[in-house]
Amino acid sequence: MTMQSLEDVRRAFKPNLPAVLTAKHHTVAETSRVVSVTTSIRSSFPSTSNMPFIRFEAGEGSDAVRPMRVGAVLSGGPAPGGHNVITGLYDSLKAFHPESRLYGFLNGPSGIVSNDHLLLDDETIARYRNQGGFDMLGSGRTKLETAEQFERVNATAKELELDGIVVIGGDDSNTNAAVMAEWFAANGSPLRVIGVPKTIDGDLKNEDIEVSFGFHTATRLYSELIGNVMKDARSGRKYWHFIRLMGRAASHVTLECALATHPNVVLISEEIFAKNQSLKDIVAYLADVVVARADKGKNYGVVVFPEGIVDNVPMLRSLIEELNDVTTGMDTASPALVTERLAPQSAETYTSLPDVVQEQLLLDRDSHGNIQISRIETEKLLIELLQRELEDRRDYKGSFDPMAHFFGYEGRAGLPSNFDCTYCYGLGVTASALVRGGHTGVMSALKGLHLPAEQWTPLGVPIVSMMHEEIRHGVPKPVIEKALVDLCGANFKRLEAERQAWEVEDKFVCAGPLQFEGATADYAPISVLIDSGCL
Amino acid sequence: MTMQSLEDVRRAFKPNLPAVLTAKHHTVAETSRVVSVTTSIRSSFPSTSNMPFIRFEAGEGSDAVRPMRVGAVLSGGPAPGGHNVITGLYDSLKAFHPESRLYGFLNGPSGIVSNDHLLLDDETIARYRNQGGFDMLGSGRTKLETAEQFERVNATAKELELDGIVVIGGDDSNTNAAVMAEWFAANGSPLRVIGVPKTIDGDLKNEDIEVSFGFHTATRLYSELIGNVMKDARSGRKYWHFIRLMGRAASHVTLECALATHPNVVLISEEIFAKNQSLKDIVAYLADVVVARADKGKNYGVVVFPEGIVDNVPMLRSLIEELNDVTTGMDTASPALVTERLAPQSAETYTSLPDVVQEQLLLDRDSHGNIQISRIETEKLLIELLQRELEDRRDYKGSFDPMAHFFGYEGRAGLPSNFDCTYCYGLGVTASALVRGGHTGVMSALKGLHLPAEQWTPLGVPIVSMMHEEIRHGVPKPVIEKALVDLCGANFKRLEAERQAWEVEDKFVCAGPLQFEGATADYAPISVLIDSGCL
Repeated sequence: MTMQSLEDVRRAFKPNLPAVLTAKHHTVAETSRVVSVTTSIRSSFPSTSNMPFIRFEAGEGSDAVRPMRVGAVLSGGPAPGGHNVITGLYDSLKAFHPESRLYGFLNGPSGIVSNDHLLLDDETIARYRNQGGFDMLGSGRTKLETAEQFERVNATAKELELDGIVVIGGDDSNTNAAVMAEWFAANGSPLRVIGVPKTIDGDLKNEDIEVSFGFHTATRLYSELIGNVMKDARSGRKYWHFIRLMGRAASHVTLECALATHPNVVLISEEIFAKNQSLKDIVAYLADVVVARADKGKNYGVVVFPEGIVDNVPMLRSLIEELNDVTTGMDTASPALVTERLAPQSAETYTSLPDVVQEQLLLDRDSHGNIQISRIETEKLLIELLQRELEDRRDYKGSFDPMAHFFGYEGRAGLPSNFDCTYCYGLGVTASALVRGGHTGVMSALKGLHLPAEQWTPLGVPIVSMMHEEIRHGVPKPVIEKALVDLCGANFKRLEAERQAWEVEDKFVCAGPLQFEGATADYAPISVLIDSGCL
Repeated sequence: MTMQSLEDVRRAFKPNLPAVLTAKHHTVAETSRVVSVTTSIRSSFPSTSNMPFIRFEAGEGSDAVRPMRVGAVLSGGPAPGGHNVITGLYDSLKAFHPESRLYGFLNGPSGIVSNDHLLLDDETIARYRNQGGFDMLGSGRTKLETAEQFERVNATAKELELDGIVVIGGDDSNTNAAVMAEWFAANGSPLRVIGVPKTIDGDLKNEDIEVSFGFHTATRLYSELIGNVMKDARSGRKYWHFIRLMGRAASHVTLECALATHPNVVLISEEIFAKNQSLKDIVAYLADVVVARADKGKNYGVVVFPEGIVDNVPMLRSLIEELNDVTTGMDTASPALVTERLAPQSAETYTSLPDVVQEQLLLDRDSHGNIQISRIETEKLLIELLQRELEDRRDYKGSFDPMAHFFGYEGRAGLPSNFDCTYCYGLGVTASALVRGGHTGVMSALKGLHLPAEQWTPLGVPIVSMMHEEIRHGVPKPVIEKALVDLCGANFKRLEAERQAWEVEDKFVCAGPLQFEGATADYAPISVLIDSGCL
């Protein structure tokens, strides 16, 4: 016998398109909707800060039907669905004119600079339909910001006679796309630059971008793993599991997974920061739940939190900032030496940390010499502090056997869900139409994601309209604002309303493996459904 | 809207049964097949060492149709499918006579001793159909071996008027089931004890037990995660992933996952032991592959291995034995102190290990004071040794950025695959028939698992026939022999034939999430298919 692989099965999946994109369609500038940006941002984008929102209409536009030439690039960490953006682009360009060409730049934005590309054909596209990963082209993190880089991008565009470049990436990559769009517009080039919202962290999100692609598939995998660990905990009844998830700035991943699985404790960075909680507060809360469960004979449980909590405990944040200063120029930083140099409050915070974390805070530096928060094993930090706290609790008679997990890289490159396949394919088709319509500096978007795909609304969103100013390396810079969890939003409110019931009672949900067929196959992310008010 | 949960969807799944079990059936002793056991084992099982193999026939047997009373117990770590053994038992007992009763003992074998049980009813059974985990009853690891325990088990059996007890567990639990069966037979009790082969490790396996239940679902999950990590590695092209999997004694999990996903390097404990490989040999091989891939511009890759490799490197095994001796009675064992006391060769091995592993070897002890191999982070050991080795390779110009993973607890309690649901349900129905037929000391089994379920052959296998003698705590003891990977078997041969092609070329397979519907939903484990010659 031969076994058909799931990869092969998935190649045959046909994503549905929004109705307006299924036949001839064209774009229309939506002049009625204007977003005002600050003078400072406007001055950074003199040629592109007034781009209109773009909507879609059925029927042929006024543009001549001629072959189009477009380049696509994958930027940053992989997210499930990236290949479908490209297949959507490809199919749409070819449907528009069979002589159209789609180039894939290799290994991220540096591939545009060096004109390292692959001319995509039917066979290559067929191989990657509905597949995970970014391996068709590879990815990279090179930032395009210097005039020299843009000159070389321009040379590539001329050599390939490109009409447009589609940048598939996260907030920083899309900021970059806007900068590139501005450069071309300012330099009189007709080249269009379109962004596509990718990131499993879910922090590229606003009124028009309901969710970034990849978020659904990644959180479904994490929810599967969390649900399995819950079942395991409840079967053996002897382990407390501490599960760290991705999300340094924002806790969307943790929130989505929590709403899907109902852990006993859920920590949300944004809440910790807003309530000015200390590590002590967090650990006291954890201990309260451990003790309450032990009183019911439950010496097991599941705690879920984002990697960013360390960065969001105000006291730790200032400690880390101080540590970065204090250790600059030190050849060998020892905990003892560092403690001497810290201000008294920071010194106290620092010495209260477990030895291993004190060491981690000194050892791992990024290329700028800064502490790498993501390398800190927060799960072990919480466990050790909690163990100490439980020893001090006289009323606690339970047993505490902790187990630490980090679910991260496993979720970035899986076979995309039907939702991500369909969403990304639609984003690709939308991006193609935006290039054909002559638009630049806009992001491909689809709205109404709680509805069936046929009813989604494609649009182009001016990237500059999403920007605010941030201090980066001491200089104010216009960048796309990272969307944090909205503590007044429907998703966090849902968590707030439900989580107390999860603490002592076991309301665990075993989410199970993502299904591509059957009753659950076409679900959208829970947070999208709650946001839309339909769940 | 309401979202139907996958747990709910799965509750409606109806496992197919082997044809002979679908209508009235009875058991027949297969007198022609005799397995001889050693005199010593025979003397341990005077009343049950000559139990025949049991086969099944359609049609009513000669036994009176009367209500049966059976107790079931879950033993050891959870494995997907355990609940279906119980639902199969329940349905079969009720179909035989509606007044039959199934008791579930709580929290493992200790629940039999203390008569802590749940009388199972339609509603409870419905809730757990095709669900993962062992949380319907909980599980435990108490061994039943003393006369006092057996007296209390006997009291429980009398109080509940049990006809039989079904023990759902691994090799040790099934050894225990045989000891219990012997005790009852020797004491003139009509109580029957039936075993059911559970373990995700896959090491309860022989001519009649083609695979233990739970193995398929667990390895499918690990294969999903490995496949995702592979896609991630190939997308970013900058990480080497080191993935430790479960399997201390045997490497079946690693072998199954490797055949499913094609990692660049696969380590198999049994091979390491057979070839008398040192850590140096293993690390040299890893370095060869890293260098060969770097030469092709591939500074990324995936290495998969079982947790048991440390225990199977002969030099490490003898070091660990010596360490256990040397540190006995030491209050505080420091690496320096220990090194002094070790024999020269062991001291050399010991000091060649990374500091963190030297410490781990001294810190973590089980309740007998022995080193806990499973706590040693083998992935970090390999990474550190490999880093040193690569520094010595003058021909190596690549970059090496390693990432460590352990996939274990996530896989023990997931929603069971169609294969495990169907297999376990059939094992439950078979166990019920074995109790009704008056058999004891046999294991419920199904053969021909590469065929559709309708064609599977149910049978009862005398547990004593699977035994050999092992020295446990200095005393020879008859136990079920753990099945190691057979280096002459079809599965390992397949790996041997293919793995070289996986080293430098990327033959990665993204296995994807386990599917319950569609073309791939009804697959059996790859190793079962290869063993049967049909793949």
